[in-house]
Amino acid sequence: MSTAIKTAENEIAPTSNDKPLPNSRRIYIDGEQPGVRVPFREISQNQTRNFDNSVDDNPPVRVYDTSGPWGDPAIRADVREGLPSLRRHWILSRGDVEEYQGRDTQPIDDGYLTFNAANQARQKEKGRLEDFPTLRRTPLRAKSGACVTQMHYARRGIITPEMEFIAIRENLGRSWERRHPVCTDTEEAPRDSLFHQHRGQSFGAFIPEFVTPEFVRDEVARSRAIIPANINHPESEPMIIGRNFLVKINANIGNSAVLSSIDDEVEKMRWSIRCGSDTVMDLSTGKNIHATREWIIRNSPVPIGTVPIYQALEKVGGKAEDLTWEIFRDTLIEQAEQGVDYFTIHAGVRLPYIPLTARRTTGIVSRGGSIMAKWCLAHHEESFLYTRFRDICDIMAAYDVSFSLGDGLRPGSIADANDEAQFAELETLGELTKIAWERDCQVMIEGPGHVPMHLIKENMDKQLETCQEAPFYTLGPLTTDIAPGYDHITSAIGAAMIGWYGTAMLCYVTPKEHLGLPNKKDVKDGVIAYKIAAHAADLAKGHPGAQYRDNALSKARFEFRWEDQFNLSLDPEVAREYHDETLPQEGAKLAHFCSMCGPHFCSMKITQDVREYAAAQGLNDEEALIRGMGEKAREFVEKGADVYSRS
Amino acid sequence: MSTAIKTAENEIAPTSNDKPLPNSRRIYIDGEQPGVRVPFREISQNQTRNFDNSVDDNPPVRVYDTSGPWGDPAIRADVREGLPSLRRHWILSRGDVEEYQGRDTQPIDDGYLTFNAANQARQKEKGRLEDFPTLRRTPLRAKSGACVTQMHYARRGIITPEMEFIAIRENLGRSWERRHPVCTDTEEAPRDSLFHQHRGQSFGAFIPEFVTPEFVRDEVARSRAIIPANINHPESEPMIIGRNFLVKINANIGNSAVLSSIDDEVEKMRWSIRCGSDTVMDLSTGKNIHATREWIIRNSPVPIGTVPIYQALEKVGGKAEDLTWEIFRDTLIEQAEQGVDYFTIHAGVRLPYIPLTARRTTGIVSRGGSIMAKWCLAHHEESFLYTRFRDICDIMAAYDVSFSLGDGLRPGSIADANDEAQFAELETLGELTKIAWERDCQVMIEGPGHVPMHLIKENMDKQLETCQEAPFYTLGPLTTDIAPGYDHITSAIGAAMIGWYGTAMLCYVTPKEHLGLPNKKDVKDGVIAYKIAAHAADLAKGHPGAQYRDNALSKARFEFRWEDQFNLSLDPEVAREYHDETLPQEGAKLAHFCSMCGPHFCSMKITQDVREYAAAQGLNDEEALIRGMGEKAREFVEKGADVYSRS
Repeated sequence: MSTAIKTAENEIAPTSNDKPLPNSRRIYIDGEQPGVRVPFREISQNQTRNFDNSVDDNPPVRVYDTSGPWGDPAIRADVREGLPSLRRHWILSRGDVEEYQGRDTQPIDDGYLTFNAANQARQKEKGRLEDFPTLRRTPLRAKSGACVTQMHYARRGIITPEMEFIAIRENLGRSWERRHPVCTDTEEAPRDSLFHQHRGQSFGAFIPEFVTPEFVRDEVARSRAIIPANINHPESEPMIIGRNFLVKINANIGNSAVLSSIDDEVEKMRWSIRCGSDTVMDLSTGKNIHATREWIIRNSPVPIGTVPIYQALEKVGGKAEDLTWEIFRDTLIEQAEQGVDYFTIHAGVRLPYIPLTARRTTGIVSRGGSIMAKWCLAHHEESFLYTRFRDICDIMAAYDVSFSLGDGLRPGSIADANDEAQFAELETLGELTKIAWERDCQVMIEGPGHVPMHLIKENMDKQLETCQEAPFYTLGPLTTDIAPGYDHITSAIGAAMIGWYGTAMLCYVTPKEHLGLPNKKDVKDGVIAYKIAAHAADLAKGHPGAQYRDNALSKARFEFRWEDQFNLSLDPEVAREYHDETLPQEGAKLAHFCSMCGPHFCSMKITQDVREYAAAQGLNDEEALIRGMGEKAREFVEKGADVYSRS
Repeated sequence: MSTAIKTAENEIAPTSNDKPLPNSRRIYIDGEQPGVRVPFREISQNQTRNFDNSVDDNPPVRVYDTSGPWGDPAIRADVREGLPSLRRHWILSRGDVEEYQGRDTQPIDDGYLTFNAANQARQKEKGRLEDFPTLRRTPLRAKSGACVTQMHYARRGIITPEMEFIAIRENLGRSWERRHPVCTDTEEAPRDSLFHQHRGQSFGAFIPEFVTPEFVRDEVARSRAIIPANINHPESEPMIIGRNFLVKINANIGNSAVLSSIDDEVEKMRWSIRCGSDTVMDLSTGKNIHATREWIIRNSPVPIGTVPIYQALEKVGGKAEDLTWEIFRDTLIEQAEQGVDYFTIHAGVRLPYIPLTARRTTGIVSRGGSIMAKWCLAHHEESFLYTRFRDICDIMAAYDVSFSLGDGLRPGSIADANDEAQFAELETLGELTKIAWERDCQVMIEGPGHVPMHLIKENMDKQLETCQEAPFYTLGPLTTDIAPGYDHITSAIGAAMIGWYGTAMLCYVTPKEHLGLPNKKDVKDGVIAYKIAAHAADLAKGHPGAQYRDNALSKARFEFRWEDQFNLSLDPEVAREYHDETLPQEGAKLAHFCSMCGPHFCSMKITQDVREYAAAQGLNDEEALIRGMGEKAREFVEKGADVYSRS
């Protein structure tokens, strides 16, 4: 891979996006439908070196891979050319779309009044990329009267290539035992066979032992999961957001009026998917919004989300009161044609709810929410996002853009959590969800924000009830307000919990939250914290296969296979670096000890001894072990003997 | 303050321990008993600058302060002299202790065979501190037949100065309404008056609106809380560990055979209490254990914990099988005379449980646990910690060293969580707890380790039941194994949750866990992550006053009082640094915008507008607001009017 992008100064070397992850290879697993070829990363492991110098092989560990063609060393991707169009054939072959002369790009799309002004401004900033250089693809839309959403297909019983791709991906490539199981009602489904056995506290996720394409279809048809897949973003690799699947994470990027360039944002997109982000939201404000987005989408193998009202606001010079339905509608079409996969629409910020926020500690903190609040107040009118919601649905259905119904009244502090304003908006989101579903539009619901731990479950429960199990997509939540600089941690706590309770996708928070725009290091810290939260939730939900990686890493740790421990971790580079700070010698990584205990004594070494001792005494005998375990303490001792007395 | 300690190279400047926290002053609140003078940090705030240019005052925010005399600029503390003996008078005036000729220090205490060898070794390492330079205090112990534990006093109805100190401290200096409320049974206590009203999910913590000295005494007498306060550590400021109080955190420090010096460890102790650690465990191994500990204790205002078996092991050259009860007993007395406040004793690692670990993924990962496992196997005998437990109790009672009953069989991986070995040991810890309580010894119970979220509550519930509500002290737990380098985060998730469920103290995990020994930066990262977890738990438990700091910080954030937002945060330095990365100018900190949205548009600014608009329309009227809130959406609109139509 190569990249022509000039990177700004960052803590992380400019080439870090291109460096392959250690001991990893890209593999693909083919599906049955043409072109279904699902990428995974396989991490190879060293042999186990036993204390008697014999060796055992350790199988490679296969992990979900969001890096797309960028993660395949065999593909020479170039940001100036964009990624290959994986889904183009699938989309066209369904026969329900048409190419058409799209909307003309206008200087105002990038925040300029004339093309001259745009060119002049960009020339000043040399080194920046300009318009995406390759030929623009003619946009696609649904033929008149057609609906091209994955939900539409799902409800008609069609298993799309996207769905098969997702099934293979969610299983981490394990093949399912039986295809198309009869799964008419998960409530009644036999958990002992189809569904995974799960011990401990459970909150109603129904995760099958194997995800089949039919299960994917069924969940989408039931509107419990969405597949964000704009027909104009054929570069994207299908993924699913739903609580009966792996928990996903989103990384926000985007320039602002104050800072950063297109180059930075494309780099951050690539960086965040390399770290494991499942979707990316481009929250750019200020100038060059259209151009930035074009670069991002053409190079993104993951779904891209936006908040269209941000761009609409730029088009009216930042004056919320000057927004109109026409400008907003035009912006939706502009972005739908580019290929944005989901739109955050703050249609639940209704005029009557606004006074409910006046006495809050932190008022309205959602940017989209406050834009609409300002508009509503200025016009003394109900929000056009609400009154025109059916029109919006028509646009979403024509391109298969998914709704992410925004929580414009989400709490911005612990003090405001779960208040009337928040829950009033949630009820409206529930109403709107039904309207969208009537039109086969895919919907997820955005959630807070700042919520103390004891109020998190109430959020999840209310969302499931009010929005009829539409997937929940939460920002954190942050469980305390007192740690600016560490809000990736305050929020990873809430994110892990709400993921366990049923949230389908977690929007990351970086250490810079509340303080500034994230740089690459912050993006990575945010993504890793959220990969941790999502994986912790997957473990807690009993997702089959989730624990596989934990087990492999722990086995490596126990056997002092340091290299494998690093390579299997979420961030091999940091794990290695931290280890090497105290024991930098290459030999130390093969040593049967670690810096915590030193060479003379190590608890893991002793456990090895215990195991060997037990083995020598015949304790490896399955039956003896089970008996020993059943009897436990007292009996065992009372017999006056013990297993060890034989020696 | 000054320090003579030469610091090693660290990311953080050597003087960082001495730098006062911004906008903070040390205050004291006196109790009724002589010498009870409780320190707090008060953070002053700027005025609120309203949009109409009027100003409002913001009261200073008082926070719990663990930094002791080191945090008081008026005190000139010097590590070579140690801290003042705050509690000495209280201890002596109870009339139940005697000075005596303590145990002679031996070269083996520091891992040397002769004093010559010790001196030679230390001379080689120039710049290191040697024996603590001031006159050694003659040790104290209980007079024959006396018991000097805080539990003993509590059960006799005595409110010690330590208890009064704690009550003032836990209330953050708020005065309690009535002293000595009748609180004979918290299960029946009237929650509406004495206890704090709490909304949301609750797990049976009974936190009073105001902590009184009597409540402290009662909780200690009921053995639901402990006050670690060795009579030979008079420098310590009293604190309490129990689930009906603020959740506490512990930081582990300690040199190892491979790395670090005494100087580093004293610096780390000071650093961790500056960041907010409530206790510190010295887990030193290798050489100079005795000398390191002496330096730490003489300079520590927080209770110090140790794992005495570590030192005992050094005394027998690292050979677990050579350990004897006599060597261990001698080590306990050595450390009790120095003033260690709590001992981790792995008395639950019983011979019959050891085979239960043979088939684990990660065997026995507790260092103490594996030492004892090795001993048991080598001798084919029950652990002397178990068989001699009553003798150990006698020593603990004579110095008021608290038990921290170690979980030597805690799981070291997700795969091993909540298994038979772990719970078998827990049952033994429950039995031992009863024995200790019969002798008025204070007890807390250590807990895991690695536990996925859905199994955390089972841990807490079993502990409460098996150990009859003795305080739980958990390491994390880590909620996944796959993120070495980020285990402060994987474990902060588990720590926050188990703190909410009822764990009284959380043992921190640093980013270096599993990889190496923490440096100062790691110590800080670990402490901050755990302050977050503990505070999130306090919020979720509804601890009165916990949310005060969140509210103050959020108000400052909402009002763009950047300086106050930094100063009120857990880490003012990092918060400021992150902000300044994107908007470094001094003026930006006074600006009514932030780098996320730029000067042109800001959601918080809009909310201000909403508020002002509402105010202008008469919405500030309390009644109108309440009516508006009650009516909510539809009615409000149906009336055809709205509050704004008046304009």
